[in-house]
Amino acid sequence: MSDLIDKLNWRYATKKYNPAKALEQDKLDRILEAIRLAPTSSGLQPFEVLVVKNPELRAKIREVAWNQSGVTEASHLLVFAAWDNITEERIDMMFDLTNEQRGFINEGWEAYRKQLKAIVAARGDQANAEAAARQAYIALGVAMVAAAYEGVDSTPMEGFNPAAVDEILSLADRKLKSVVILPLGYREAEGDWLAGLKKVRRPLDKLVSEI
Amino acid sequence: MSDLIDKLNWRYATKKYNPAKALEQDKLDRILEAIRLAPTSSGLQPFEVLVVKNPELRAKIREVAWNQSGVTEASHLLVFAAWDNITEERIDMMFDLTNEQRGFINEGWEAYRKQLKAIVAARGDQANAEAAARQAYIALGVAMVAAAYEGVDSTPMEGFNPAAVDEILSLADRKLKSVVILPLGYREAEGDWLAGLKKVRRPLDKLVSEI
Repeated sequence: MSDLIDKLNWRYATKKYNPAKALEQDKLDRILEAIRLAPTSSGLQPFEVLVVKNPELRAKIREVAWNQSGVTEASHLLVFAAWDNITEERIDMMFDLTNEQRGFINEGWEAYRKQLKAIVAARGDQANAEAAARQAYIALGVAMVAAAYEGVDSTPMEGFNPAAVDEILSLADRKLKSVVILPLGYREAEGDWLAGLKKVRRPLDKLVSEI
Repeated sequence: MSDLIDKLNWRYATKKYNPAKALEQDKLDRILEAIRLAPTSSGLQPFEVLVVKNPELRAKIREVAWNQSGVTEASHLLVFAAWDNITEERIDMMFDLTNEQRGFINEGWEAYRKQLKAIVAARGDQANAEAAARQAYIALGVAMVAAAYEGVDSTPMEGFNPAAVDEILSLADRKLKSVVILPLGYREAEGDWLAGLKKVRRPLDKLVSEI
């Protein structure tokens, strides 16, 4: 259908990585740039991404992630960590950055800043944390497409203890909460039980309907 | 950096669409196929996508979506609707489909089916609905990249009343809940206040850190 569709068909949730095959820096840079460009609600980008290189930290994360081998054996490990709350300070940070980068202050934009602050104050901390987590999942989706586009394997993982990962990476100090992790690297297809199996998706008419 | 990065830089949250410029069917098909191929947790694809064509329904949605013009003026409107809960039946539907498409029953896979049912039963309806919503956001991210790749404009929108949209589209009957909507079409840049403004993102060193 298109290059992009071919690449989405090529990718799969790699279960065995080749630990000897490093991800090239330029490919990693493009995947991270795609994450940076991912659209988010009100442009807040309410998350951060940690590239965990330290092997001891990765071993500790693997212990609280169902012992999934990709956590330590893939070339790189990304941790998507959402803001633990959406605060006035964080909203100001992004709105001030916007004014600074665009070089002017827009009345409508300033009215929206106030409105947004009222919305987040009203819905409460838990709902804000969840809203931030959802935005991190947009970036996760973008990252997996960008990786596939580069011919890089990736494995989205929710199977870990978020509180334990927060502790290992001291995320509370940064007011962040881990929501999903993503090993990146290259498959070792011979040893991967999933590599040869058919990709299963619902047929289009079970997923999409016109109305 | 790459074609894909160029396209992500080209896209923006289009505020004004050209109502006379229709999205080509083959482009829509590829965007929907990318959504279908989006990776999801345990392969559940816990959402559906509605392509809303009926102008009256779109007008009603616009009324509960802050009167955003793209809802009615973009060529197409996608509604991402997550499962209202992750049930045993729904898990069985996907695991049975997997067995059917792969042509065999795998012991490890069947053990995982039981484990997953225990997990979703333990965490409760609300957490399951939220988990399903997060997966829909992966598909949203994939859809926006796929649209940009096709040179198609899109506008992710959370600014609507989900309960009202559920009512307009009778989503409760299908045990779905609207989580995000996405007009698709072509920009009318002359009339769009955002079209000429700089895209603002945090610099990479404020978003990504190595550890």
